[in-house]
Order: sequence, then structure tokens, then C-alpha cells
Amino acid sequence: MSHTTGTKTPVTLLGLGAMGTALARAWLAAGHPLTVWNRTPSRAAALTAAGARAADSAATAVAANTLTVVCLLDDASVEETLNRTDLTGKDLVNLTTGTPAQARARAAWARERGARYLDGGIMAVPPMIGVPDAGAHILLSGSRELFDQHRQTLAVPAAATFVGEDAGFAALYDVALLSAMYGMFAGAAHAFALIRGEDIDPTKFAPLLADWLVAMAPAVHQTADQLRSGDYTKDVVSTLAMQVAGTPTFLTTAEEQGVSPELLTAYFTLMRRRLAEGSGEEDLTGVIDLLAR
Amino acid sequence: MSHTTGTKTPVTLLGLGAMGTALARAWLAAGHPLTVWNRTPSRAAALTAAGARAADSAATAVAANTLTVVCLLDDASVEETLNRTDLTGKDLVNLTTGTPAQARARAAWARERGARYLDGGIMAVPPMIGVPDAGAHILLSGSRELFDQHRQTLAVPAAATFVGEDAGFAALYDVALLSAMYGMFAGAAHAFALIRGEDIDPTKFAPLLADWLVAMAPAVHQTADQLRSGDYTKDVVSTLAMQVAGTPTFLTTAEEQGVSPELLTAYFTLMRRRLAEGSGEEDLTGVIDLLAR
Ligand SMILES: NC(=O)c1ccc[n+]([C@@H]2O[C@H](COP(=O)([O-])OP(=O)(O)OC[C@H]3O[C@@H](n4cnc5c(N)ncnc54)[C@H](OP(=O)(O)O)[C@@H]3O)[C@@H](O)[C@H]2O)c1
Ligand SMILES: NC(=O)c1ccc[n+]([C@@H]2O[C@H](COP(=O)([O-])OP(=O)(O)OC[C@H]3O[C@@H](n4cnc5c(N)ncnc54)[C@H](OP(=O)(O)O)[C@@H]3O)[C@@H](O)[C@H]2O)c1
Repeated sequence: MSHTTGTKTPVTLLGLGAMGTALARAWLAAGHPLTVWNRTPSRAAALTAAGARAADSAATAVAANTLTVVCLLDDASVEETLNRTDLTGKDLVNLTTGTPAQARARAAWARERGARYLDGGIMAVPPMIGVPDAGAHILLSGSRELFDQHRQTLAVPAAATFVGEDAGFAALYDVALLSAMYGMFAGAAHAFALIRGEDIDPTKFAPLLADWLVAMAPAVHQTADQLRSGDYTKDVVSTLAMQVAGTPTFLTTAEEQGVSPELLTAYFTLMRRRLAEGSGEEDLTGVIDLLAR
Repeated sequence: MSHTTGTKTPVTLLGLGAMGTALARAWLAAGHPLTVWNRTPSRAAALTAAGARAADSAATAVAANTLTVVCLLDDASVEETLNRTDLTGKDLVNLTTGTPAQARARAAWARERGARYLDGGIMAVPPMIGVPDAGAHILLSGSRELFDQHRQTLAVPAAATFVGEDAGFAALYDVALLSAMYGMFAGAAHAFALIRGEDIDPTKFAPLLADWLVAMAPAVHQTADQLRSGDYTKDVVSTLAMQVAGTPTFLTTAEEQGVSPELLTAYFTLMRRRLAEGSGEEDLTGVIDLLAR
């Protein structure tokens, strides 16, 4: 528990896949003593050459330091890896992707075994890890004390943000952000499909598309304000009625360009359903109400 | 055709709805002599008070100046409004939203009547018009000569970009950009729905979401590069196989949070279809191929 002033906190890292290896390199580069373990031992070779210590079992690796970071394939591999280790008095940071429920269950499981627990979602791909200003983020939730004690160490691979004491929140934010990204990618895919049949260079269209998406992204602030207040008509510029009236142009254009509208139809259907409920003067926010099962 | 040096080009504007009125105010504020017409004449009152001249018919309005801008509800209202006007020798700029095919047909129609023609898509809502740095854009396509001659006048309400001599391109870009935006909004709606059941303030989540979408938007440049080269494996960081493997986490999280996955499923289905074609080492770009009918 003591904070070692002047020297860097030693880290144990379990899992040396693409992401684990990137994390390892970041901590080594920052001068943290690093103990690593991987199921397939050969993946540790380059890291030991760079100064890491390779443990011959997960149990030995966990025993070596107070702080253990786990970055494995999925929750099942975390269970399999940790269930023969002694977690008493350990600080466990699990950066393996999972659902909020898995994170909460894993947090309870770790607490029962005497460990403090933080769950994390890495909002980056491996090449962004440890690169200042690359925009990499790690969202963390669970033990505030663990976060406060190790925040500097955790911020070495990527900017570290604590998002709540509910251990499931980091996974929830992670999934929510990535889901939104897939929506944006789906929209961009439809846009590229539309221009495709024409004599248009996609690399000339892309800057307009990127700028436009960047300009429109801040609309989520207004959505959040409306969700908080419950008033979906606040500050509306284009009403739901106006926007639904515009949808035939999108569908007809897709048809003219020989493009399937399948990436647009689910959202347009929800817009129409909300309009049919008498919400024509609202913003698009009411669509969110319809998603609750 | 002569360029009046020192004085501002006079403009005729047909259509004084929300957008037309915003355009009118921008040209008046910039000192352009302005002749307006609207089907319902009362909507011109505030503008005549601000210095515009109201014509009593569309034909009189068109006759008053060389440059006529049209901003009406839809293509049918443009036809109805212009078919009793003399367009010989006129410069017609149609900022009414429509499909690319409508724009091309309207361009041919205008040329037959002796007018030069530009079609435009306004990438803004009325409050952004005429406000420097508000980010408003007008995309224009069709007669390059018309654009070159009037580019300064056309850039008064919003930054004006010429996107090609095919009169349908502005409408195509407009629809493509807005389609992408709806995809992004659909993704954001799903994200907000996911966090909704929890004790999370949506206005605290929104900044993370906005930053994340802004950070991910430039991915469209790589998509465009891959589309141009035809090599969808170029510079791939997360392969399609890896991303498809991750989709159950998204669907399970939606289920855990009581959220319908309907805004994600179409894209995930296309990802899986592309993977099944043996494209696991590709980026997500191949999904675009599947959208062609
Ligand atoms: N890569 C990314 O872009 C990215 C981005 C954000 C988050 N993440 C998350 O980071 C985590 C790791 O991703 P990655 O890209 O490093 O994956 P990866 O390259 O596929 O590596 C998987 C790791 O898990 C280990 N593993 C799998 N099953 C195991 C088991 N039953 N017991 C013990 N170890 C097991 C593998 O060991 P072996 O070497 O022995 O197979 C390997 O170290 C995942 O949860 C992923 O979702 C990745
Ligand atoms: N508002 C936006 O946020 C926005 C953004 C980008 C693009 N646009 C596009 O800009 C155009 C105008 O939009 P807006 O917001 O100004 O719409 P609006 O407020 O509904 O106004 C519609 C205009 O069209 C006129 N009109 C309708 N049917 C007509 C007909 N048969 N003959 C003659 N005039 C007719 C109306 O005249 P009356 O006054 O007589 O009804 C009114 O001037 C649309 O194509 C829209 O898609 C709008």
C-alpha cells in the first residue's frame, strides 16, 4: 500500500496479445519494473529482451507485485488465469473487454478473494498506446482508492479516466462509445456506397464527410440536456416532423444510386414511430425512449 | 453577365420559409439589393421592412435580376413556381433539397429554357446562415461558369463549395452527408439508451461521447484510401474477424441493459456476411460492397 516515492511502481501484466504487448512496452519505456506472464510463453521473449521479467506461472507473476494488470481475451480467460493465484491484498486492474455484468461479477469475485478491483475499457488500438497525444483513453471504474493510488501508473499507456465506483461503468461506457462508433461507421458506409457509382474520388469526398461528422458530433450535448430535463422540445431547430418529412429523399436517392437502404431503415422507422405517437414538435431524442425493451 | 465592380450583385430569392428567410437576411445584411417573392405574401413583410423589395409574382421577381435563388419546399414546388417565369439568360441557383436525379432533370429543364443552372445543398440549419464561423456550408454543382461568376455572392450565407459539373452531385453529397449523420445519431441514440437505466448523468457522458466520435470520424480517410486502391487490407489495425468476434459483447450488453439492439443489427449482419465471404483479414470497408443492389 505504501507509495514508493522517486521510483516507479512495479507492475505485473498478465496477457501479451496485441494489446498486452503494447501496454508492456509503454510501462517499460516509462521505467516501471515489469513482470509479465502469457499462456504461450514465447510471446514474452521480446519483452524480456527489453527489460521485463517473465514469470513461469500466473501465480508467480501475481505474487511478484501488488499491482496486477490483466489484459486477456475475455472474461472466461480471466477466470481461468486468476483462479489459481492468491489475490489477497492485491490491486487488480482488469483491462479485458467484457459486459458490465461480467465486470460487476468479477469485481465481487476479486473482493471475496481479498483484492481491490478496477475494471477498465481501453478506447484505443495498440499503435496508439503509450504515444502521447495519440488520443488513447482508458476508462476505469470500481475502487476509487485503487485508482487514486495508481492513477499515475495507469495513465502511462493512455489517459486514464475514472467513471464511477460501480465496477460495471467502464465496460458500459466502453460498449456505449463503441456502439456509437459503429453507428457512425454504418452511416459513413452508406454515404460511400451512394457516391460509389459516380465519377467521384472517395478521397476527395472523405474530407467533407470527416468535417461534417466532426461538426455534427456535438449535437449529443443537446440530446443529453434534453434527456436530463425530460423536455425533448427544448432548443429544437429541426423538428421530428420536418425530419421525417425529409426521409423519402434519402430512400429515393439510395434507390436511384442502386444502394440498399438497410443501414438507414431502423433509425427512420423509429423516427416515424415516435412521430406517430404525436411527438412531431420534438427533437430526435424521443427515439431513445423507444429503445427500452 | 457583366460583373458589377464596387456594388453588390442584386439577388432575386423565391421562397421565404425558415431557410429562405435566413438566406434573405444574410444577403440584406451584406448589402445586396434583394427582390423576394413568396407564395404566401405576408412572409415578406419583415424583409421589406429591412430593405428587400417584394415582387407580386415569381415572374416579376425573376425578371428583376439576372441571379435568381430558389429555396422552396421540394422539386414539385420549384416546377410549379418557375413554370410561368421567363428564364432566358438567367442564372438559376436552386437550393431546394432533392434527389440527384431531380437535380439533373431540373438542370436540363433550366438549360432548355435558356438559363445557366447550379443546384445546391445547404449543410446547415437556418440559425447558422450568415453567421461567420458557424460552420455552415453550401455545396453547389452544375454550371462552373455560374459558380465562378457568383461565388462571392453565393458565399454570403455560408461557405460555398463547388463539387462538380454534374448538377446531381451537390444533392448526392448532401444526401450522403446527412445519411452519415443519421447513422451517427442512431449510434449515439443506442449509446444513450445503454447508460439510461443507470445512475449516470447523460450530460457527464455526452462530452466523452462527442470527443470519441470526433476522434473516430477521421477513420473515413482510411476507408476512402482503401476504396480507391481496392485493397481493403491496407493499414488494417482491427481486422473484420476481430471486430465480428467482439460483436456478442455489444449485443449482450444491450440485453443486460434492456435495450433493443435494432440500431446495431443491420451493420453487424453485414459485417458477418462479409466475414463469411472469407474477408476476415480486411478492414470494415468491404461492408460497402455489400450495399450495392
Ligand atoms: N487489440 C485491440 O485493438 C483492442 C482494443 C481495445 C481493447 N482490447 C481488448 O484487450 C484484450 C486483449 O486484446 P488483444 O488485442 O491483446 O487480443 P489478442 O491479441 O487476441 O490476445 C489475446 C490474449 O489472451 C490470451 N488468452 C486467450 N485465451 C486465454 C486463456 N484461456 N487463458 C489464458 N490466456 C488466454 C492470449 O494468450 P496466448 O498468447 O497464449 O494465445 C493472448 O495473450 C481483449 O479483451 C480486447 O477486447 C483490444
Ligand atoms: N430548415 C432547415 O433546417 C433546412 C436545412 C437545409 C436545407 N433546407 C431546405 O431548404 C428548403 C426550404 O426549407 P425551409 O426550412 O425554408 O422550409 P419551410 O419553412 O417549410 O418553407 C417552405 C417554403 O416553400 C414554399 N412552398 C411550399 N410549397 C410551395 C408551392 N407549391 N409553390 C410555391 N411555394 C411553395 C412555402 O411557401 P408558403 O410560405 O406559401 O407556404 C415556403 O416558402 C427545403 O428544400 C429544405 O429541405 C432546410
